[in-house]
Formats: sequence, C-alpha cells, structure tokens
Amino acid sequence: MGHLREPLNDMQNCGLPSALEVMGERWSFMILRAAFNGLHHFEEFLGALGIARNILSNRLARLVEHGIMKREPLPDDRRKIEYRLTEKGLDLLPAMLALRQWGEKYGAGVPSNPVLCDERDGLPIAPIGIHAHDGRLIGPKELEWRDASEVGKTLGSYDDCEVKPQLSALR
Amino acid sequence: MGHLREPLNDMQNCGLPSALEVMGERWSFMILRAAFNGLHHFEEFLGALGIARNILSNRLARLVEHGIMKREPLPDDRRKIEYRLTEKGLDLLPAMLALRQWGEKYGAGVPSNPVLCDERDGLPIAPIGIHAHDGRLIGPKELEWRDASEVGKTLGSYDDCEVKPQLSALR
Repeated sequence: MGHLREPLNDMQNCGLPSALEVMGERWSFMILRAAFNGLHHFEEFLGALGIARNILSNRLARLVEHGIMKREPLPDDRRKIEYRLTEKGLDLLPAMLALRQWGEKYGAGVPSNPVLCDERDGLPIAPIGIHAHDGRLIGPKELEWRDASEVGKTLGSYDDCEVKPQLSALR
Repeated sequence: MGHLREPLNDMQNCGLPSALEVMGERWSFMILRAAFNGLHHFEEFLGALGIARNILSNRLARLVEHGIMKREPLPDDRRKIEYRLTEKGLDLLPAMLALRQWGEKYGAGVPSNPVLCDERDGLPIAPIGIHAHDGRLIGPKELEWRDASEVGKTLGSYDDCEVKPQLSALR
C-alpha cells in the first residue's frame, strides 16, 4: 500500500477493534444476520437461532447499547417489544456480506443456498469489492495511503467534475 | 430481504462465526492491518503495535493456522522469518475496509488521516457498498433471498449476455 502507513500504535484511541468485538462475537453476529432476515421479536430470535434465553438477552442489550439495534415497544401493546436495526446497524451489511462471501469462497461452511439477489432483477449481487471513485474495481495492491492535505490538493484539480459528490459521500 | 430466509439454526455447521472470531479478535485485527500496511517481520509488528511478545506470537500462529497469513524463512538467511498475507488473507480487505469506513462514519475513533487512495489517480476509494451484477449500488432493503434453483432459471433467460462471467466470480 505505498510508503505512507497508517498510525498503527494508537490502539488505545482506535475504537474499531472493540466495535468489531461487539459485532464479530459469534452470537451477536447470528442475531444481526437474523435481524437482516426480518426477525424482530425476542421469541423469534430464540426459536430461529437455538440460543439460550440469557445469552440472547445479553447480546441484544449490548447491540442496543452500541446503537446497532433499537428496542421499541409496539404502539398497540406496549408489553410487546420489537428489536430493529438502526441506520448504524443497517450500515454493517456491506461488511457482513463481504465476510459471508469470503467464507463461501474459502469453504467456511457458509450455506450457498439461498442466494442473495437484487430484488429488481432477481440476479445474485456482485462480490463486495474495492472500487475507485469512478467505479473501477481495484485490487489490494493498487492502493496507497495519502496525507489528507495532499488529497485535498488533488481534489482541487478536479473542480467542476462529477467526482466531488461521490467523495463527499466518504465523509 | 423478502420472504425466503437463510437457514439460521445451523450454527453448528456454519464456520463463519469462528472465522470471524479469528479475524475480529482485537490483536489479530491489528496484526492484519499492519500486514496490509506492508509489515512482514515479527520485530516490526512488535514495534509498531505495542503488543506483548507472547500475544503477538500466539496471534500470528493462529492466523497462519487459518491460512490467512503464511510464515516463510528468507532464502538468504533462513533464521529470518517473514509473515505475509496469503490470497485468503488479502481477500479479507473488502470486509476490513467496510468495517473501517463504518467506524469512521460512526465515530469509533478511526483516524481519518491518512486517506486510502487508488494509486492510479490518487483519489480516495469509494465507500464499500453492495452492487448489483451490473454495478448499480443497491440498499439493504432492495435485497431478497432466492432459491439457487430459481436463480438458475433466471440465468437461463440471460444466456449469451455479459452477465454470466460476473456471476461465476461469485462462486
């Protein structure tokens, strides 16, 4: 990835590993998968996952605490609670699908049926990949780190072209 | 994601959560990040990550055991060992970058400088997203599960078009 490196020794400041532990823990990951599959109720998760009641309760609480899921009483019966993915939770889907495809490719025992498709045309989604700002697929060896100030300069020379709106989506 | 669901109760058969635990564990994740940043030697990891010697040794062994990194004596001095990402390891990059961007978006303390760029044009990469077979970006609510046999049928009607090679990349 070029000569510039990420600062790697700031583990204490980087919240990513701990966020990853929340989502990557075995049962949390299965709960998220179930939520993406449209399950909303405690008893549904319990039945579908074959998970112990106390573990399910603990993991749901952690996901809620991290803002990945939200806990909402139903308006017509406030004793009934729904668990739904927040926007922050929904935004985990590309990472989860990338992991799933990786598992499928390397025989981690991910079931290959059913197949995840685009509902518009019914065809399987593309592999999750790394794309340049203009949509080109790029490989792990075609990447480099740049100092933010330097990237700013490069952007300057792209004024008035269609690149900018896509870049703003990165922020 | 439509009416069909993944089979969710086959935890015992699904190797994804355990694969995820290997990669998602705090130190393993930092070692992978360092490897993607071009670090190869035990002493380099030690210095850059501020990790204890025994933990580094243990995590490197686990990554090698899972085929994510390989351990190679240097040809000119076989006492010197290099750790490098395998193809299986390199293929984790889209998932890792998706998590990183998620962390940046939700303030998990991911440093936003330096910026990961395409070395060809020096511009920041696009957000990792879910794309249809033809490259369209699709959202988490535009997905559906289809039975593999049904997808086969749909493909039949797409014979002789450019869609097929891309689909084969999914397998």
